[in-house]
Amino acid sequence: MQMRAAVLWEPHSPLRIESVTLPDPGPRDVLVRIVGSGVCGSDVHVLHGQLPFYDCPIVPGHEAAGVVEAIGSEVTAVATGDHVILGWIPGCGSCQSCWDGHPERCPNLGFSGALYDGRTRIRVGDEAIGSMAHIGGFAEYALVGERTCIKIREDAPLERVCLIGCGVATGYGSVFLRAGVQPGATALVIGCGGVGLNVIQFLDLAAATTIIAVDVHPAKLELARTMGATHVVDASSVDVADAVRELTAGVGVDHAFEVISTAATIRQAYEVTRPGGQVTVVGVAPPGEEVSLPATLRKTVTGGGPAGTQWGVTPMLVDLYMAGKVKLDELVSRERPLDGVNDAFADLAAGRVARTVLLPHT
Amino acid sequence: MQMRAAVLWEPHSPLRIESVTLPDPGPRDVLVRIVGSGVCGSDVHVLHGQLPFYDCPIVPGHEAAGVVEAIGSEVTAVATGDHVILGWIPGCGSCQSCWDGHPERCPNLGFSGALYDGRTRIRVGDEAIGSMAHIGGFAEYALVGERTCIKIREDAPLERVCLIGCGVATGYGSVFLRAGVQPGATALVIGCGGVGLNVIQFLDLAAATTIIAVDVHPAKLELARTMGATHVVDASSVDVADAVRELTAGVGVDHAFEVISTAATIRQAYEVTRPGGQVTVVGVAPPGEEVSLPATLRKTVTGGGPAGTQWGVTPMLVDLYMAGKVKLDELVSRERPLDGVNDAFADLAAGRVARTVLLPHT
Repeated sequence: MQMRAAVLWEPHSPLRIESVTLPDPGPRDVLVRIVGSGVCGSDVHVLHGQLPFYDCPIVPGHEAAGVVEAIGSEVTAVATGDHVILGWIPGCGSCQSCWDGHPERCPNLGFSGALYDGRTRIRVGDEAIGSMAHIGGFAEYALVGERTCIKIREDAPLERVCLIGCGVATGYGSVFLRAGVQPGATALVIGCGGVGLNVIQFLDLAAATTIIAVDVHPAKLELARTMGATHVVDASSVDVADAVRELTAGVGVDHAFEVISTAATIRQAYEVTRPGGQVTVVGVAPPGEEVSLPATLRKTVTGGGPAGTQWGVTPMLVDLYMAGKVKLDELVSRERPLDGVNDAFADLAAGRVARTVLLPHT
Repeated sequence: MQMRAAVLWEPHSPLRIESVTLPDPGPRDVLVRIVGSGVCGSDVHVLHGQLPFYDCPIVPGHEAAGVVEAIGSEVTAVATGDHVILGWIPGCGSCQSCWDGHPERCPNLGFSGALYDGRTRIRVGDEAIGSMAHIGGFAEYALVGERTCIKIREDAPLERVCLIGCGVATGYGSVFLRAGVQPGATALVIGCGGVGLNVIQFLDLAAATTIIAVDVHPAKLELARTMGATHVVDASSVDVADAVRELTAGVGVDHAFEVISTAATIRQAYEVTRPGGQVTVVGVAPPGEEVSLPATLRKTVTGGGPAGTQWGVTPMLVDLYMAGKVKLDELVSRERPLDGVNDAFADLAAGRVARTVLLPHT
């Protein structure tokens, strides 16, 4: 079949909307009609060539949800018509790490632009095109592995719950799975983009009582308040350490979440955390970057990026949204058709949006 | 009353055995006749003036056990004749941290050489002498706060279970409370002194299946095998990274325990841990020392020294020893009378002993 997809032909160039070819589903493939696809900071890393395991040409996009259109002969987990969120860490499902609930450590299914069987699916003429994160969400359809499909309830709006596939799950995982925030905790979040805002809303859900949001964009700080921040700090004009000292009676926060991934902000997060507290580095710093920390290490520092913090949580998060306990509508600053993808990246770079959701079939 | 105690009059000088004065127990004081007192690396830090919260003159020693000789009028937790291990993190018992089971974070009861009420007890003439860690274990008696006393069963040999007060509890806390080692784990321990050997024995108790011990003293590596190491690496002649690679099929260990506390060995521990694994820094690095780590932080790094890893475990550890599940006899290289304390430090510095136990009444 033919479909439209946004292809990155080389790093640092605009995406081009191409008519590409998809084969019929293989025995274990699932064809998904994409309804909504979030534009995330990790897609920016792909555009800038900062994720060395992805070669161009590739279809970016990894935060998508849709409806199963067709399945291969051996697929049992989903059926035609099922609503699914596409999960970007499928894992092989059979190794010790996957059995332990840690597909992010699966040695058998890494990131390369290929699917679970090591082969790509998309073609333009004779040229093979990769799919980011086993998905390639900036397209009308995705041909994915069975384990990439997470079946969800059918009354949830796919153009909203697509966000659960990456940003929301990462916020949840960082706060509940990685940091284990307890009621009454004090917390700091450095960076209020799409992921940082989710960290804030799950801190609120975890009943943290002091949630300090730090950014340099006033609009993001306003959104941080909407998501549950009790205090906001504009780091362009206020000293973060002073602000934390004042808000925590000089003790420091129990938990600091660093959602920018620079050495300077990781160090800053460490400094303002109390002894015995925890610094959770949510993003992924560039390869080779080093951070200097006091060797006493009186605070726990943990990271690994989204792949080290998320997973296994998706249908439950849909339920939380439908129950009014998780905010998604507030995160969607704008919807655009597929050919608005480059404008969406421009908005993201300028700090004008938390998330744009692409609607490939409009 | 008069008693003999080993007093540090100034840093870097030998301890002097003095006849010192103890007052009668105050209302909340407990007088303990010390039966056994371990000589630990933290005492060395006091001797070298590396713990800035301790002023000289002071009686070192913080790993002691004995028998309650007398109690103050308001003491209810112990009675005369009770056998006790002295705990070096009493906490105030009333603040949020203490209620949470984290006396090591108690803001009300720090380390200063004074007892819970901010006053010292020991005198030489008119001069006030501090007690290390609310204890001052290198003496015939200790006048301590009620919360310093941990009552234990009376059939356990006090000259052995005294080790539980610091080194053994720290090994237990590091492996079970801080790192949460699971059966089948692979682990590395850098530094096989009194604490490192305990980390090894609790890794064995936790059913870690690969336990790699690293040191530069062959005698310590031999003892490491006795305590449960499955492999030993002499870092003076073997490359640690190569050895770990070979023993873990190139993956790295699940857990690295750093029990030396230098930036170089912390970095080494980080390097040989697998992504998603955990580095536990058991010791306390000197103030001001920095460690450089990859900012991706794909591994959890946690520390805080013994105060960040131990606590609340003492009577259970005595039961484990009596049940043959925890080794103490193997850790005691030598017993000495109180006036052998300087020789014990010389043995420790030369790597000749795991632990010396002082017997102040022999």
